[in-house]
Amino acid sequence: MRAAIVGSTGYGGVELIRLLEAHPNVTVTSVVSSSSAGSYYSETFPHLTEIVAGVMDDVDPALIRGKADVVFLATPHGVSAQLAPRFLEAGLKVIDLSGDFRLKDPAAYEAWYKKGAADQAYLDRAVFGMCELFGDEVAGADFVSNPGCFPTATTLGLYPAVKAGWIDPNSIIIDSKTGVSGAGRGLNLSSHFSEVNENLKAYKVNQHQHTPEIEMVLSRAAGRPVTTTFTTHLVPMTRGIMSTMYAAVTDRDRTTGDFLQLYREFYQDRRFIRIRQAGTYPATKEVYGSNYCDIGLNVDARTGRITIISVIDNLVKGAAGQAIQNLNLMMGWDETLGLGFAPVYP
Amino acid sequence: MRAAIVGSTGYGGVELIRLLEAHPNVTVTSVVSSSSAGSYYSETFPHLTEIVAGVMDDVDPALIRGKADVVFLATPHGVSAQLAPRFLEAGLKVIDLSGDFRLKDPAAYEAWYKKGAADQAYLDRAVFGMCELFGDEVAGADFVSNPGCFPTATTLGLYPAVKAGWIDPNSIIIDSKTGVSGAGRGLNLSSHFSEVNENLKAYKVNQHQHTPEIEMVLSRAAGRPVTTTFTTHLVPMTRGIMSTMYAAVTDRDRTTGDFLQLYREFYQDRRFIRIRQAGTYPATKEVYGSNYCDIGLNVDARTGRITIISVIDNLVKGAAGQAIQNLNLMMGWDETLGLGFAPVYP
Amino acid sequence: MRAAIVGSTGYGGVELIRLLEAHPNVTVTSVVSSSSAGSYYSETFPHLTEIVAGVMDDVDPALIRGKADVVFLATPHGVSAQLAPRFLEAGLKVIDLSGDFRLKDPAAYEAWYKKGAADQAYLDRAVFGMCELFGDEVAGADFVSNPGCFPTATTLGLYPAVKAGWIDPNSIIIDSKTGVSGAGRGLNLSSHFSEVNENLKAYKVNQHQHTPEIEMVLSRAAGRPVTTTFTTHLVPMTRGIMSTMYAAVTDRDRTTGDFLQLYREFYQDRRFIRIRQAGTYPATKEVYGSNYCDIGLNVDARTGRITIISVIDNLVKGAAGQAIQNLNLMMGWDETLGLGFAPVYP
Amino acid sequence: MRAAIVGSTGYGGVELIRLLEAHPNVTVTSVVSSSSAGSYYSETFPHLTEIVAGVMDDVDPALIRGKADVVFLATPHGVSAQLAPRFLEAGLKVIDLSGDFRLKDPAAYEAWYKKGAADQAYLDRAVFGMCELFGDEVAGADFVSNPGCFPTATTLGLYPAVKAGWIDPNSIIIDSKTGVSGAGRGLNLSSHFSEVNENLKAYKVNQHQHTPEIEMVLSRAAGRPVTTTFTTHLVPMTRGIMSTMYAAVTDRDRTTGDFLQLYREFYQDRRFIRIRQAGTYPATKEVYGSNYCDIGLNVDARTGRITIISVIDNLVKGAAGQAIQNLNLMMGWDETLGLGFAPVYP
Repeated sequence: MRAAIVGSTGYGGVELIRLLEAHPNVTVTSVVSSSSAGSYYSETFPHLTEIVAGVMDDVDPALIRGKADVVFLATPHGVSAQLAPRFLEAGLKVIDLSGDFRLKDPAAYEAWYKKGAADQAYLDRAVFGMCELFGDEVAGADFVSNPGCFPTATTLGLYPAVKAGWIDPNSIIIDSKTGVSGAGRGLNLSSHFSEVNENLKAYKVNQHQHTPEIEMVLSRAAGRPVTTTFTTHLVPMTRGIMSTMYAAVTDRDRTTGDFLQLYREFYQDRRFIRIRQAGTYPATKEVYGSNYCDIGLNVDARTGRITIISVIDNLVKGAAGQAIQNLNLMMGWDETLGLGFAPVYP
Repeated sequence: MRAAIVGSTGYGGVELIRLLEAHPNVTVTSVVSSSSAGSYYSETFPHLTEIVAGVMDDVDPALIRGKADVVFLATPHGVSAQLAPRFLEAGLKVIDLSGDFRLKDPAAYEAWYKKGAADQAYLDRAVFGMCELFGDEVAGADFVSNPGCFPTATTLGLYPAVKAGWIDPNSIIIDSKTGVSGAGRGLNLSSHFSEVNENLKAYKVNQHQHTPEIEMVLSRAAGRPVTTTFTTHLVPMTRGIMSTMYAAVTDRDRTTGDFLQLYREFYQDRRFIRIRQAGTYPATKEVYGSNYCDIGLNVDARTGRITIISVIDNLVKGAAGQAIQNLNLMMGWDETLGLGFAPVYP
Repeated sequence: MRAAIVGSTGYGGVELIRLLEAHPNVTVTSVVSSSSAGSYYSETFPHLTEIVAGVMDDVDPALIRGKADVVFLATPHGVSAQLAPRFLEAGLKVIDLSGDFRLKDPAAYEAWYKKGAADQAYLDRAVFGMCELFGDEVAGADFVSNPGCFPTATTLGLYPAVKAGWIDPNSIIIDSKTGVSGAGRGLNLSSHFSEVNENLKAYKVNQHQHTPEIEMVLSRAAGRPVTTTFTTHLVPMTRGIMSTMYAAVTDRDRTTGDFLQLYREFYQDRRFIRIRQAGTYPATKEVYGSNYCDIGLNVDARTGRITIISVIDNLVKGAAGQAIQNLNLMMGWDETLGLGFAPVYP
Repeated sequence: MRAAIVGSTGYGGVELIRLLEAHPNVTVTSVVSSSSAGSYYSETFPHLTEIVAGVMDDVDPALIRGKADVVFLATPHGVSAQLAPRFLEAGLKVIDLSGDFRLKDPAAYEAWYKKGAADQAYLDRAVFGMCELFGDEVAGADFVSNPGCFPTATTLGLYPAVKAGWIDPNSIIIDSKTGVSGAGRGLNLSSHFSEVNENLKAYKVNQHQHTPEIEMVLSRAAGRPVTTTFTTHLVPMTRGIMSTMYAAVTDRDRTTGDFLQLYREFYQDRRFIRIRQAGTYPATKEVYGSNYCDIGLNVDARTGRITIISVIDNLVKGAAGQAIQNLNLMMGWDETLGLGFAPVYP
């Protein structure tokens, strides 16, 4: 299968290329960039010298249709809304990594993203590709909206407990922490080394655009509207997301062991979800460079609350890896195809 | 005034020496270490070459009484419990940086610290030195128990709202993050560079020994027993603590501005507490190397919850700096004496 | 092919396991540790949960012979000297990652390593596996001594110029910098996070045990004894080695372009060596997690000196990756088998 | 004394403000920025909340003359060349931190800086303020050109040996490493966190604009023109410079001890230079946040070369600290005034 990567000079794009290099069924045949068309990709990314040979293509759906069967859009919010319909109409399958097609309600998108929403017809057509939760809906789709990095770590960690009714969904508090690569490759003082190194900061307090996406998934689990408190922090590291999540348990007799058992059963066939032993909690480096989402949890009898900790690599399971996992599901391949490598540690 | 530092080869001890070098009223006359007595301090800490000239003394209260008027105990939990009475009986003023004299209930100490508690008479005698909250009690004391790093950041951030009854104290969830120096200079795989760098991990989930200290202060604010959820995380940086705190507001009509006003008034004469503008939140580097505690907050009308963010340098306001501030209060000096320097940034 | 990893709880061992997981011809059938035999490997390395299932074996050559065909010794200097003969006598192929069999002169080993040397018969039998320089000698061998991390980066960067007589070998100065994982997983204050982070230090100035190994290779290139100045520095990062090398050129008319051409021809069939364009120099992250060695250089007409910059990932090309490359060469497989993945960036 | 800081939104400017806050004889009365005039300084730098109260002034020499006696120019190369004459003509003392007035030969400036040089009259008037080497020339001056960060670390480490004729000046090779703050606060992909973190790169190989400044000082020491090889590397840390320097000794009988004795005598009255014991070498963190320059060295009998290691904090001794030291010298004050604090460690 031939693939094109649009937005290839960003971190999502270059991670797609790294991962697809190792995929047995896919060849990257077009590396696309509106800003750098015509220049060699390895000049932008010297680590791919002698690995990616060619020059970048312009954003031209007709041209790309001649070279590829599927296009990954690793483009910014607002750009994908414009590009996805053009590539779909050109006859390509589309996997969009931006937030433009995740929320089905344009008003919610506009309220949180502060931009105009995509066309409703395409919002309806895009399948929300949270693989371990809604993977069945992805099979056979030609247009998948890849979930956000925070929603992936967060909802994978909360879904079984909410679905089972074992925690009160409206008591959920989500404290998330991310490495700096999540902010992308665009220059900004908040990603400037001397500002970020040896520093920890909160940002978008109660205003992060991933909030409605998280609530959308949790509401589906709960069967009723859920509202959550969600805060994000920037950690001086390149990769990794951790969500530390707090909720009131609905039955104080349920133990840590009961919850672990629930989670193991819920995810029993899902290779990329690893539930940790009681008393141990995953660290972000334990999934570095891989498609795993690792989850640990603890019920505190003193307070009647559960603490759930979920980690991913934001560029893999939180972006490029899950996008490839979605391609595997679209094509009816094993979902782990090309993604079955171990984390890089240390 | 002449000061001795016991436990001088740890990070708390060496930070005391850095800060006291700049204190106009204090001279460090004895640098004490049980493990390194007789060797030059600057061999252990070459950054103090030509600044600290002498060799380390052994832990000998009589000897030290001849050289010093006050002793800072920067010793591990369990050690201070033994040493503090000996130094007090020798006639020295004592400021203890360990956790051994903070909790007045020996049973609570033993449950959380998994060690035998100090003698009740000395527990009763030690004044808990959270300067901005209970500083009045420190004046004239000869034995002060310096607060823990997490309790300092956390309770300074919560106290005004709990005291005013503006948040429900039993709804409080505290998500804390610390730099690695908080784990001390002792060797441990969890402080090994390659394990910590590019990594984020949670530890002591629902089991951190600072939990009862936090609850002790909040209970005092609330006027009734308070139970909280408290989780700590290790961040790949050397210095800094951030507590992100969540609670239900008791009156949904109160705004972010109302809370900021409450905090500004509560801390109006306290030089080391800085309340940030609405919409901005402190980062740990903004207090790096200094005795400040910076606080920002946001009320979310959607959820009826407040998010409060409080940062300190764990080695300064969370340890050595507050200890010196306590000395200033004990002696009736201006509490900022020797501590009025700007943070190191970037 | 079945492989055993001895010293599996160190960083070299765990990297071998990561890489061999992806090797099409090799299965790791025994994970060996003298200190942790009988416990689950994934308890020591949770990132391998559900990837490596079993418990660790003890160091028992007869037992391991029943389970494996080749053994990788990722054991400390001094230990391999004892173990390698035992495994060889048991009929296993051996690839040793320590320094014990690299130097053929026991006196040199003892002078630089401050330990007793291995038995001369085994020193003679071990093939020094610097793949791109002496790979022909590895084919068919049953005992390979894998080169050191600094010698790999350094001699790959210097060999073509010395061999061609284009630089004066006795003018060579090597300034090397390494990430902290090179110091291993053993606890030491010099790998303690708070000591290393935001810090840069030189160590073993003019005393590093890799000096004679570098001189051994360069002497072979020059056809006469070569002495070099070699200094190592510890950089606050986990992975990566850079050697910045300086030498006097023998003919001041030769340009940067001439040298680049020489290097490209010398390494033209070697997939893992990438020579950079004039005016660009490799950074360590550009080979992160991969088996590449990237080289850039510049001739300065002002001074008549060349500056050569060579980078590797110390745990891959500098240890586990080159060890697998040596296995490939021993077995007559394509040397890139199982190693042809892209670097992880960013 | 009243001081103005021009270029106050850069890292050099903000470090001047931090240090001058603690200076007993100086008050910062004007914080100047062409881009941010009229806005509050603490909005740009929240760590100075409640420390620096006012708004920034525009670059107006007449206005500033009314508020200040001395102006520090922490402005980029090319800008200082224009501004310094205007402030001098307005009657202010000027200390310039840029490279515009260091080289007395305009042709050399233009060759290395790729910009037009400052007016020759002002080049001649500016005193080059390398305090420990040429401090006598600074006394009474009204216009000082503050040295570059690399030249400070480097020439302080080489000067005594070159001056004494103990090393061959034309054999000198300088391998320098710097933290990222040296690149300033301006946005650039090469200071973008995800590009720099866990990475080490060389830059401006044989082309760094500090080369002629280093050669100027060494030529003065040698009494004849000296040419050196100089390479710079970017290290993933915020502060700190290390220069590792190599040279042939002129008499192979001289030992490490001889050189250490030479250095101790040369710098015997200079408080900010610390010469380390034989066998130990300074690390950058050992001068963090301070005005020290620490030096260690080793003579290698095998090669007839000396290795000299010199470290500074690039923002203090390499910029703001030395600028204040120069002010102290200009005014006839003790050169350590306001600078006598210990490094921040860890």
